[in-house]
Amino acid sequence: MRRDGLVCAIVIGNIPSQTSDSRADDKGGARVARSEQFTVGVDFGTLSGRAVVVRVSDGAELGSAVHDYAHGVLDQRLPAAERPLAPDWALQVPEDYREVLRNAVPAAVSSAGVDPLDVVGIATDFTACTMVPTLADGTPLNEVEGYADRPHAYVKLWKHHAAQGQADRINRLAEERGEAWLPRYGGLISSEWEFAKGLQLFEEDRELYDAMEHWVEAADWIVWQLCGTYVRNACTAGYKGIYQDGAYPSAEFLHALAPGFEGFVPDKLEHAIGQLGEVAGRLTAEAAAWTGLPEGIAVAVGNVDAHVTAPAAQATEPGQMVAIMGTSTCHVMNHDGLVEVPGMCGVVDGGIVAGSWGYEAGQSGVGDIFGWFTHTSVPAAYVEAAAAAGVTLHEHLTRLASEQAVGEHGLVALDWHSGNRSVLVDHELSGAVVGLTLATKPEDVYRALLEATAFGTRVIVETFRASGVPVEEFVVAGGLAKNALLMQIYADVTRLPLSVIDSEQGPALGSAIHAAVAAGAYPDVPTAAKSMGKVRKSVFGPDEGRAQVYDALFAEYRALHDHFGRATATMRNLKAIRRQALS
Amino acid sequence: MRRDGLVCAIVIGNIPSQTSDSRADDKGGARVARSEQFTVGVDFGTLSGRAVVVRVSDGAELGSAVHDYAHGVLDQRLPAAERPLAPDWALQVPEDYREVLRNAVPAAVSSAGVDPLDVVGIATDFTACTMVPTLADGTPLNEVEGYADRPHAYVKLWKHHAAQGQADRINRLAEERGEAWLPRYGGLISSEWEFAKGLQLFEEDRELYDAMEHWVEAADWIVWQLCGTYVRNACTAGYKGIYQDGAYPSAEFLHALAPGFEGFVPDKLEHAIGQLGEVAGRLTAEAAAWTGLPEGIAVAVGNVDAHVTAPAAQATEPGQMVAIMGTSTCHVMNHDGLVEVPGMCGVVDGGIVAGSWGYEAGQSGVGDIFGWFTHTSVPAAYVEAAAAAGVTLHEHLTRLASEQAVGEHGLVALDWHSGNRSVLVDHELSGAVVGLTLATKPEDVYRALLEATAFGTRVIVETFRASGVPVEEFVVAGGLAKNALLMQIYADVTRLPLSVIDSEQGPALGSAIHAAVAAGAYPDVPTAAKSMGKVRKSVFGPDEGRAQVYDALFAEYRALHDHFGRATATMRNLKAIRRQALS
Repeated sequence: MRRDGLVCAIVIGNIPSQTSDSRADDKGGARVARSEQFTVGVDFGTLSGRAVVVRVSDGAELGSAVHDYAHGVLDQRLPAAERPLAPDWALQVPEDYREVLRNAVPAAVSSAGVDPLDVVGIATDFTACTMVPTLADGTPLNEVEGYADRPHAYVKLWKHHAAQGQADRINRLAEERGEAWLPRYGGLISSEWEFAKGLQLFEEDRELYDAMEHWVEAADWIVWQLCGTYVRNACTAGYKGIYQDGAYPSAEFLHALAPGFEGFVPDKLEHAIGQLGEVAGRLTAEAAAWTGLPEGIAVAVGNVDAHVTAPAAQATEPGQMVAIMGTSTCHVMNHDGLVEVPGMCGVVDGGIVAGSWGYEAGQSGVGDIFGWFTHTSVPAAYVEAAAAAGVTLHEHLTRLASEQAVGEHGLVALDWHSGNRSVLVDHELSGAVVGLTLATKPEDVYRALLEATAFGTRVIVETFRASGVPVEEFVVAGGLAKNALLMQIYADVTRLPLSVIDSEQGPALGSAIHAAVAAGAYPDVPTAAKSMGKVRKSVFGPDEGRAQVYDALFAEYRALHDHFGRATATMRNLKAIRRQALS
Repeated sequence: MRRDGLVCAIVIGNIPSQTSDSRADDKGGARVARSEQFTVGVDFGTLSGRAVVVRVSDGAELGSAVHDYAHGVLDQRLPAAERPLAPDWALQVPEDYREVLRNAVPAAVSSAGVDPLDVVGIATDFTACTMVPTLADGTPLNEVEGYADRPHAYVKLWKHHAAQGQADRINRLAEERGEAWLPRYGGLISSEWEFAKGLQLFEEDRELYDAMEHWVEAADWIVWQLCGTYVRNACTAGYKGIYQDGAYPSAEFLHALAPGFEGFVPDKLEHAIGQLGEVAGRLTAEAAAWTGLPEGIAVAVGNVDAHVTAPAAQATEPGQMVAIMGTSTCHVMNHDGLVEVPGMCGVVDGGIVAGSWGYEAGQSGVGDIFGWFTHTSVPAAYVEAAAAAGVTLHEHLTRLASEQAVGEHGLVALDWHSGNRSVLVDHELSGAVVGLTLATKPEDVYRALLEATAFGTRVIVETFRASGVPVEEFVVAGGLAKNALLMQIYADVTRLPLSVIDSEQGPALGSAIHAAVAAGAYPDVPTAAKSMGKVRKSVFGPDEGRAQVYDALFAEYRALHDHFGRATATMRNLKAIRRQALS
């Protein structure tokens, strides 16, 4: 391997033995099975990028490599700058993304042992909404002379939360004016999205805003780097860019929001839309040199890490809800028609698969609630017992919790430690635990928190169903899929068959599937997913006895949900009292 | 000291210097200030008895001694028995109480350095309701030949909770029949009290019930041991024995409860009532030999640990609410008239001080909630930081919590981990914490729990006021009085001046005050309390700024209180689901 130490190349353990048949012979021997083709999927995460090399015929993951971003997340100060960034800022450096192309891609190809010439396409997925301000040619503003010390010249990462004031004004005005697009987002435009972040830039660094020629999703910027063509992907344009029915928010709306901002759409945002799985362009000579891949191969339209996972889990059909469960959970699913589901995150035509309406919902806190609990609320004896058993504290608590009958702990919790995104759409909500006694143990509360997130999912599932979007299967991807107790709880609580993605690198696999479609190996993403996606079907099923007890507990969850989420202002008042106390 | 190792004699640190003037000169010198008189107060607790020697003139505590009960609490099996006791049983051995008289009393006198001949009276207080089944002469049934292996022959300690079924039936029937006495107890007769425990004995060991000639409060049995006379004290007769307006529950009621039980009152329970502070009798020769005190000195009518504390804290006037704050809190206060306060524990004529109506309320869980939290919900780093600072975990959490502004934690909790005794009177209620976020720290929850108990007290204070029983001062006794943050929170939350008893052994001091009155040194208990009681007046006062924020937080507590305590069955349902899961 010729790359530097930042690259971590991983040879996937379960490569089918015949893959070696398709390797080029370094000694100049004849190629065997020359017909095997491969694609590269690159998943750009929050702290690193991961490339995976996948066989087009069956989706076998032959090798992968990870490259950490040299600058990580800038949330304290700019590179080589003294002045601290304000709270809630989160920036990145575009060159870090290019470095993933230069390092992780060739390392993955090398570790896979495939001939780069057999790679027929590349596709990428990205965190979103992550925004790059650029010149007309795609040069990020932080690379323009004189702008390196301007915070607004850098990439605004998805978790840059400093545009909340702008988001609040967008929502208030949209509600006042009855903007038709607002219900497409469950009634709430996020501070993370394109308009709020763009308005912040407009209001806080007007000179830079004026110099900016494109306000580009990083998902599209990286594709631009690969193929030299700027194509706006339908997914982020819809979910993050308020692009609905062929239009963005009107100039009148934007003028009412901030005089002078009415040019934002035509001047900065608007651009040709590409559907997911389409070809955005061909790999340039420069990008071929970076990646070691053949010039001219297909580069797919950009995508988002959550949405791209659906085909990786063979879950692109209506009725299949895919949950990417990690620190938070993102739910995506396709449906043939357009309906407005109360409190969803968004519905976008072609948002997940071209030709279907893609629905998204979310739970703000899932794994991070479990993590918070282990860090703040578990005594030393449990940590020691976990260490003695050679397991993590999560595993130890899970083991203890799994010994309980459903309802034995006598608790019900609300999983709103980070607010509620679906279906209440209220970030002022907070978590709660009800039913505590002097006999309550840490594993009791831990289990109640696991269950609370399952109840939160059931609320989403029931809301989709009640709106006319059936949910018939629950497909889990993401790190939490490893917790068998959690999976069984979700199956019991939702009474749905629960399938689990059979890949450790779902988003990158999903990108590789899109690359295969862009390269013409399959006619469309669902077809490609059938061959290349990997899922263990219905590995967890509901147990009727447990499900019945959960029905009773869910009724209590639902009562708390409606009481604290709708009927009373208790949680909002507590936040207001807290803010007053801290002011 | 001539006693065995079980006795722990303590010389009180702050004896005024002149006390030595009144000591007998061991070398045969003349007595000085021969007129100084002393009394002995003995406090019978759950695990030990404590005797204190007090100077009658000013209440100075000159010496004390503690004697542990050899058998402690029998909750697993009888002494030398194999067969386990059923769950929720809690028994004691009467001989352990006599041992306190034989050991702690002389040790206390010795440690005080007073001449036993200068002791003019003795009084006792006891846990309640703690019941001794006896023969006509006071012999406990477990000491009767052939009964030592019968669980029902032993003392049923206050926390014997195996008569819940009987209590439930008593309450149901009393409510159906509209018994006039039920509202005097806030609508609930406890499973801990005389009738429930007596009915359990009647139903579970009829032979023993028939052999029993008196069903005696331990508070009265110990007095009987001292003076040879059985006098039923007005306090327990009222609060625990349903003695109201000169009568007990009727024979008709008892017959309806259980045919055959109608003779319970005349045959087992009824006896001459003595008022608090009166002489029950004179110290017998036998008891004089046990205690080393002069035969014939006054023995006061029995009393209860909580109620006897009021005069020890100089808090016998109307408007003074005394809170004995430990694992739970008992509130007692006097008022000139009779009103029925919703959800109080009881109102008894002469229940605290003869001639006044004594009111009692209670919070089931206070210190034990804080203790539960430290044991189950605090990570190792806090334990280590406390150790490094040389303080307890409670002190460490309190220190951290005290650095916060009111409301800064954003939480509100319900302090019902052991149910709610006042004013909701519902043991099926449970605890809750609302407002949790990923930023919530252990000290936040700890402070919220401290505050929750203060809010619970405020509900009681407001209910008393609304019923026409004014509360103008809050007087704290018990172990939690040491926590200055907790005391300040109570002052801020209740907006009451908060006084603190200035004795480490309030109940024993209170008993010594009663002994002084019984001995004729003072005309009545309130007068004696003025000279002998000890209190630091108004050491904590409400801060208006904090009180205003607490008004806002209390409004949220009150909303949760009414929601979970009255409007919904959530907590009761959770308990039912739990019971079902465990069955």
